[in-house]
Amino acid sequence: MNIFGRIFRISIFGESHGPAIGVTIDGVPAGMPLTVNDFLLDLKRRQSGAKGTTPRVEEDMPEIVSGWVNGHTTGAPLTILFRNSNTRSDDYDSISKTPRPGHADFVAHVKFGGHNDIRGGGHFSGRLTLALVAAGVVAKRMVDPINIKAKLISVGGSCDIEGTIDRALEQGDSVGGIVECRANGIPVGLGEPFFDSVESVISHLAFAVPAIKGIEFGSGFASASMTGSRHNDPILDATGRTATNHAGGVTGGLTNGNELVFRVAVKPTSSIGIPQNTYSMETDRVEELVIKGRHDACIALRMPVIMEAVTAIALADLKLPANL
Amino acid sequence: MNIFGRIFRISIFGESHGPAIGVTIDGVPAGMPLTVNDFLLDLKRRQSGAKGTTPRVEEDMPEIVSGWVNGHTTGAPLTILFRNSNTRSDDYDSISKTPRPGHADFVAHVKFGGHNDIRGGGHFSGRLTLALVAAGVVAKRMVDPINIKAKLISVGGSCDIEGTIDRALEQGDSVGGIVECRANGIPVGLGEPFFDSVESVISHLAFAVPAIKGIEFGSGFASASMTGSRHNDPILDATGRTATNHAGGVTGGLTNGNELVFRVAVKPTSSIGIPQNTYSMETDRVEELVIKGRHDACIALRMPVIMEAVTAIALADLKLPANL
Amino acid sequence: MNIFGRIFRISIFGESHGPAIGVTIDGVPAGMPLTVNDFLLDLKRRQSGAKGTTPRVEEDMPEIVSGWVNGHTTGAPLTILFRNSNTRSDDYDSISKTPRPGHADFVAHVKFGGHNDIRGGGHFSGRLTLALVAAGVVAKRMVDPINIKAKLISVGGSCDIEGTIDRALEQGDSVGGIVECRANGIPVGLGEPFFDSVESVISHLAFAVPAIKGIEFGSGFASASMTGSRHNDPILDATGRTATNHAGGVTGGLTNGNELVFRVAVKPTSSIGIPQNTYSMETDRVEELVIKGRHDACIALRMPVIMEAVTAIALADLKLPANL
Amino acid sequence: MNIFGRIFRISIFGESHGPAIGVTIDGVPAGMPLTVNDFLLDLKRRQSGAKGTTPRVEEDMPEIVSGWVNGHTTGAPLTILFRNSNTRSDDYDSISKTPRPGHADFVAHVKFGGHNDIRGGGHFSGRLTLALVAAGVVAKRMVDPINIKAKLISVGGSCDIEGTIDRALEQGDSVGGIVECRANGIPVGLGEPFFDSVESVISHLAFAVPAIKGIEFGSGFASASMTGSRHNDPILDATGRTATNHAGGVTGGLTNGNELVFRVAVKPTSSIGIPQNTYSMETDRVEELVIKGRHDACIALRMPVIMEAVTAIALADLKLPANL
Repeated sequence: MNIFGRIFRISIFGESHGPAIGVTIDGVPAGMPLTVNDFLLDLKRRQSGAKGTTPRVEEDMPEIVSGWVNGHTTGAPLTILFRNSNTRSDDYDSISKTPRPGHADFVAHVKFGGHNDIRGGGHFSGRLTLALVAAGVVAKRMVDPINIKAKLISVGGSCDIEGTIDRALEQGDSVGGIVECRANGIPVGLGEPFFDSVESVISHLAFAVPAIKGIEFGSGFASASMTGSRHNDPILDATGRTATNHAGGVTGGLTNGNELVFRVAVKPTSSIGIPQNTYSMETDRVEELVIKGRHDACIALRMPVIMEAVTAIALADLKLPANL
Repeated sequence: MNIFGRIFRISIFGESHGPAIGVTIDGVPAGMPLTVNDFLLDLKRRQSGAKGTTPRVEEDMPEIVSGWVNGHTTGAPLTILFRNSNTRSDDYDSISKTPRPGHADFVAHVKFGGHNDIRGGGHFSGRLTLALVAAGVVAKRMVDPINIKAKLISVGGSCDIEGTIDRALEQGDSVGGIVECRANGIPVGLGEPFFDSVESVISHLAFAVPAIKGIEFGSGFASASMTGSRHNDPILDATGRTATNHAGGVTGGLTNGNELVFRVAVKPTSSIGIPQNTYSMETDRVEELVIKGRHDACIALRMPVIMEAVTAIALADLKLPANL
Repeated sequence: MNIFGRIFRISIFGESHGPAIGVTIDGVPAGMPLTVNDFLLDLKRRQSGAKGTTPRVEEDMPEIVSGWVNGHTTGAPLTILFRNSNTRSDDYDSISKTPRPGHADFVAHVKFGGHNDIRGGGHFSGRLTLALVAAGVVAKRMVDPINIKAKLISVGGSCDIEGTIDRALEQGDSVGGIVECRANGIPVGLGEPFFDSVESVISHLAFAVPAIKGIEFGSGFASASMTGSRHNDPILDATGRTATNHAGGVTGGLTNGNELVFRVAVKPTSSIGIPQNTYSMETDRVEELVIKGRHDACIALRMPVIMEAVTAIALADLKLPANL
Repeated sequence: MNIFGRIFRISIFGESHGPAIGVTIDGVPAGMPLTVNDFLLDLKRRQSGAKGTTPRVEEDMPEIVSGWVNGHTTGAPLTILFRNSNTRSDDYDSISKTPRPGHADFVAHVKFGGHNDIRGGGHFSGRLTLALVAAGVVAKRMVDPINIKAKLISVGGSCDIEGTIDRALEQGDSVGGIVECRANGIPVGLGEPFFDSVESVISHLAFAVPAIKGIEFGSGFASASMTGSRHNDPILDATGRTATNHAGGVTGGLTNGNELVFRVAVKPTSSIGIPQNTYSMETDRVEELVIKGRHDACIALRMPVIMEAVTAIALADLKLPANL
């Protein structure tokens, strides 16, 4: 489903090369100051243009079409629309017959009986994260003063991020990366057992983002190698502050008042300049595929602001008064 | 919330030392053969008794209290109840004042204003997974002939699982582990974009399980170190079969017909025999805590059947006819 | 689905002649005083025994199996269970072949492929309202000090309720009735546009109750005959008090601070002592059916407490801080 | 909430005088033929212009902004947008201080702390039903060949609909009416017990529509005056056909294969030309209010197509294969 959340409920729509992409947010309180300008910084961070990201530059100018009057929210659903432009659909003509490895071309073709919009990946395009980032801007405002910051901490297994991307670009290849997100100022007790643990809600949103293949909280996979005596975080005072933070700020599925820390694994961009093999529906055999056009060498570069949005949306949806 | 799912909807209730734990499943088709015996194998796999798991042995005998007549389901909600017994509540008297590191004691105390059931961790107890496993048995039946198998692949960073647990037991310590789950026979196209990717739904459920701190699909975190030319899985034929399976059976958030593969990181059991420091609400300072009673040295031992349940429940909820 | 609500979420299960009927409530705040005795008055009001209602008397003793410790709620899901007893299943043996007019026998047979529990109407039995009344008791506590009172205002078109039921009993027939529910002390602004108007949520719940065939708020159907100049309720002061209450306390789908008033139409009990014609699946033709056993002559007698429950549950689910 | 449905899920947004009104539909199958022209007939039926309805004529031209390519749906969310135009906001300047009787002005002011969009009723405007009708067009296509037809059967208590409206117009007053909706060709067994009876889902949607104050199925309120021997519909054959249809096509909350019949009570338009009294927030006392501009004398004239949409949306959401 394209709808997520119980309290802060978002509905996302649009395709890469369709008329528009947008998001409707239900559950925004009335009277919250908000202007189009408030979106621009995060949209810019997500946008293409940085080294290694695709040169397709959309204006990505948000239009607020509902739930907003005179610089503040009204309490009605807030809809933010982005008109698509600068689309070169002819780049994608061959997709219908030769599904690109790593992309949704094949699975979408099967699921939707060949009726899916194939241009630019259609509804499966990473461009949909534009709507997520816009919702994140609103969510960040709602969970203020919680501070959320994400950054790219490694690319292709290396901390020399720039060098690694340069080499991938030279070879027409792409690389994956790891993004770490940290949030401070979260009260104790967010999260709703049994199913809506903080980790559950964040991971649900994170895996909706194309290219995410793993997530871990606190020590994460490293905790599997630890003993309990080392992993347990001793509680130090009445605020719940702990001496270590192996838990990444979440105990029993609830925020524990310490820094929330998680990392996501971003796979390498599926579109590469190097020729690949794939099955051709036309000839019914494996053929060589060369993907035309230029693409992100490292989609992970765009992910920090997206993971901040994921975190803010999750916290906004969970931020009920603890005792209802 | 204690309710999950849209088509196969489960509601979980109960506490470790309360009268009963149970699950109500809405969306089970009518006429499915089912007996109490069908639950016993998976419940046994989850149950305590194995080396390194807590010696508290409940009978864990399911009672089907609704949605079932004469050996088949009726289409009405199926409720499965487990009466608790063999509880030694006095072991837990001190929890109210000295929250155990790694447990939900502190966060639950804050969230519920001190009214939560503290006995055995109450609603936060790993014992709640009993209900999940029961739901998993029903879900496995529903997604048949999909075959789901999970196993523990490492403990404390080692593949010598038995030896590592023995050493932890000797020291009164605990260890974490990694569980891998594989499912075969899944049709192409399960998963509902944007938000309900297969990874989103599985991870949402997986992180509801106490002690899970990370999840990865296919190559997962390793994919962050790869290039696209290596990571992309070449499609070989009209069924979508791929030469490699770095994607772990999921492309664009949808199942791609190849083996579904994911791994979860299980933290070491929080209850250990070694003395630990924690904040005492009674004295308002850090005190030494010794946890009485015996506990699982490696909670990861119980996880394979739980992760199978997670997978089956996710697939049952997503297994709509592709085109609705 | 057998689950309703977003904030105060209830899951209902059970059959008339199965082992138990129950309800799990998610979203009950922690620390609310509650005992088994608190349920008894409303359960008694719903129970059989009054003139014209079925002589089958269940004990209807609630068992609180989760979410409750030492006389207060814990914040975890609250499950209330009612064991069935005093069932005479043999009365219902013929239902499988000769569906009773007015009952769900035929539609349930088709929907569930003949696998539904036919004993006593199974999951379609009015006995399921036991669970609704129990949830209503909890909801009433939560919306306190809102005062909700319902009563039977006519039977068979007459205000001589007792006489009308007597005559129906003499003839082995049944009669319908109208129940009116009024609630006072509701704050202005409950209800969530667009879809979750107060009327929407109340009517959704009311029509889940077997035998309800109509609902109207305020002047209801009579308002269709009015002019605007007469129907409009003039606002008198800053609290929103109106001179008349044709709106029944709801304007624009939101509570307006005046008395909430609605009425439901209850059809006559479908089970009657008079012989009826119905299609026999056995002989493939219309046969005379005589329903054995004794039944409610006027199911509407039970409805006041059920409609109070409906109102309380709706308000509990909507009673968020207005501005979130 | 502005989102409704589980399988056919719609999200509605917009305000009367904001930039646009729209609806996003999640759950539309891929490959369904659909063009802008398909919407025009039903939009026209809803539109103003008929005798007694407001002369404000919007173009109401739908723009499909997502989920659609080359004349067919893609399986991705279908968003339909209507740009507002021809708005005369100055008509509404006084609303902020003198809430109009019968309108949401007062309750919305309280609920949203004065931040709601007051122009034309904002999000509470009947104009929002434009989005509902658009969703209805899609839903009708999905439930084809079910045939749904609604009509206005009385106005102001009279069957002389035209004459009654003429008199109201002359007096600057308004009148209510009753709309009846009938649907044929519905299979047996739609509806999901316990909560999602067909009546529950239809009434939930119907009461989301501004001005609806009552709903009844089949004999409805008249059934409260009947005996069971008269009200029960004898089943005639294996298709479930009944000799009478007092049940209005719904038994036990499920469709029974006979004609679905329901009626809604529509209150008189709240905006009238006759001076009224209301509380003034400015002077803190009751003042005379004269509503400027021209308005529908009988909003019930617009309701038939809206109730068809309600029915189609409800059936589309419930139209799962009976046994899942």
